[in-house]
Amino acid sequence: MTADEVALLNDVIAAIGPLDATAAVAARHRQAQLTKPAGSLGVLEELSVQLCALAGTCPPPLPAPAAVAIFAGDHGVHAQGVTPWPQEVTGQMVANFLAGGAVVNAFAAQAGAEVVVVDIGVAADLGQVPGLLSRKVAPGTADFTAGPAMTREQALTAVGVGIQVARDLVAAGNRCLLTGDMGIANTTASAALVCALTGAAPAAATGRGTGVDDATLARKVGVVARGLALHRPDPGDPLGTLAAFGGFEHAGLVGYILGAAELRIPVILDGVIAGSAALVARALAPAAVGCLIAGHRSAEPGHAVSLAHLDLRPLIDLDLRLGEGTGALLALPIVQSAARAIRDVATFDSAGVTEK
Amino acid sequence: MTADEVALLNDVIAAIGPLDATAAVAARHRQAQLTKPAGSLGVLEELSVQLCALAGTCPPPLPAPAAVAIFAGDHGVHAQGVTPWPQEVTGQMVANFLAGGAVVNAFAAQAGAEVVVVDIGVAADLGQVPGLLSRKVAPGTADFTAGPAMTREQALTAVGVGIQVARDLVAAGNRCLLTGDMGIANTTASAALVCALTGAAPAAATGRGTGVDDATLARKVGVVARGLALHRPDPGDPLGTLAAFGGFEHAGLVGYILGAAELRIPVILDGVIAGSAALVARALAPAAVGCLIAGHRSAEPGHAVSLAHLDLRPLIDLDLRLGEGTGALLALPIVQSAARAIRDVATFDSAGVTEK
Repeated sequence: MTADEVALLNDVIAAIGPLDATAAVAARHRQAQLTKPAGSLGVLEELSVQLCALAGTCPPPLPAPAAVAIFAGDHGVHAQGVTPWPQEVTGQMVANFLAGGAVVNAFAAQAGAEVVVVDIGVAADLGQVPGLLSRKVAPGTADFTAGPAMTREQALTAVGVGIQVARDLVAAGNRCLLTGDMGIANTTASAALVCALTGAAPAAATGRGTGVDDATLARKVGVVARGLALHRPDPGDPLGTLAAFGGFEHAGLVGYILGAAELRIPVILDGVIAGSAALVARALAPAAVGCLIAGHRSAEPGHAVSLAHLDLRPLIDLDLRLGEGTGALLALPIVQSAARAIRDVATFDSAGVTEK
Repeated sequence: MTADEVALLNDVIAAIGPLDATAAVAARHRQAQLTKPAGSLGVLEELSVQLCALAGTCPPPLPAPAAVAIFAGDHGVHAQGVTPWPQEVTGQMVANFLAGGAVVNAFAAQAGAEVVVVDIGVAADLGQVPGLLSRKVAPGTADFTAGPAMTREQALTAVGVGIQVARDLVAAGNRCLLTGDMGIANTTASAALVCALTGAAPAAATGRGTGVDDATLARKVGVVARGLALHRPDPGDPLGTLAAFGGFEHAGLVGYILGAAELRIPVILDGVIAGSAALVARALAPAAVGCLIAGHRSAEPGHAVSLAHLDLRPLIDLDLRLGEGTGALLALPIVQSAARAIRDVATFDSAGVTEK
């Protein structure tokens, strides 16, 4: 843990401010003047208020262009038999992302979003591949049923990677960041984080991930319970909790969220991996939730638990359980539509429409 | 009722075929080969199967470009005090659509969809305005609490207008059609249609529309009940039911759906006006439901009733209750994403990804 890394995290946390209440009031006032019945845009009205309050101005900037960063890492807990997929699939899917062949690529093409792939902890040596950000902290985490998944130093380094990815994407012009992830066994790590940070029982927060059978699910619940019993996580120590259970992709996402929050850029969360990372980010910096938008609710039970604790309502609820950033990408046009509505729609006065 | 109009409707109904079971099988087979866990795209997998079965080929054509047709009309039942909005707002909002100032314009700009406005029965004289399709059947319907809202002849003419709008939009290259509507008091007409076609009670299918107060809601329920008692609609006579209660925009949407179904083009339904029109279209041609996609579920209770009867699961559920086509437009990128996934995503073999 270098002094620079500690300073970076502390500086980012200190710089995350609250939402702008004045802009929120202006946004609610403007919503009431637009040529539509009051409240008729439902959830999109509050979303537009959030975008204004985050940006500190009404109307808000359009959340475009947008980028999805896929943080990829492997997990020592894979050895406990929590998934039928071999660990090598993590690296293979990274290659698939870079070749443009995965669902995240198809959805990003539709949404007009950039895809960035970050090797933050894949067990395989991926070499230097065009388009891959090589930021490997270590070749996979350790098995959290035997000890901490990563050292505090590694966790801090990985958080710093995420902060820098967010900063670089915003510096490149992006005005909306989406979370993506890849890591065979990472729903197990997510479930442990959700339990540690919300107090949920392992059976309530652990799901079938890619679709495991009953026996594997039971084993997975047991693995999460053993991890919790071993580490006895301290809610007052979010970095220690992250180190105990998290994947490097979780840690990267924590930094990514914090980095975006500092810059007051909206972050659209994908599924349970992002949800568990958001719980860590909130524990480190409560005001960071102001930048968060729940893209969707995945079929994974720990995701609903995390959204409830974050007090976020998902925009999409279509039984997706893929990860990669796919659920966040489906939500992106909704977020952009909310911003366009408050920015571009005529008022009753300007359009000459009679009010009721 | 000209013989040509009768022949047009009969020809269209006769030409609407069932979904292609072979293409559906091919789509399910292909979904299982894509580089993602089986089932992990949730609702989007069945949606991709529907698109293939409708097009008769796997993968399906991309549902793009897309157009939303806004059918606008006025309602004689407005005189019964079912809404606080003056009738003149229908025409004013048409002008707003044409000027690009409404929410539907903002959402269409985001989704990259064309907006077409059809005056099929606005009470005001809108004149010749660039971009407006002047297809006025009559300047508003009659009050359905005193007699049929329209004659059978008018209903048939308005259905023919909708068929022709769909044909023209597809001839112009569109590969996905979205429903839009504008008509002050049209949630009252929709509620009556839903009750007539599903057997729902007026209180279960009538809602607050633009947000009416308790007294107006009670009056609205009473108006629907009186209309049903007066007309005693025959479920075996969908055109008569449409004529009894419908707005011209409902009739136009019925034709629009049938015209798209004949051409095997997907239709994304907006809210309760589209849902009630879809019930009429299904009663005329049961196979027409094969082209239907529920864009969203509005806050209007009659919409949930109609979706349940159509056996459609909405893609968006965000408490919208605006109409215009706004909910359908929010769903368009999801439909396009489903098509892109089955069309563009690599298979395990092609990408060299190990299966579990």
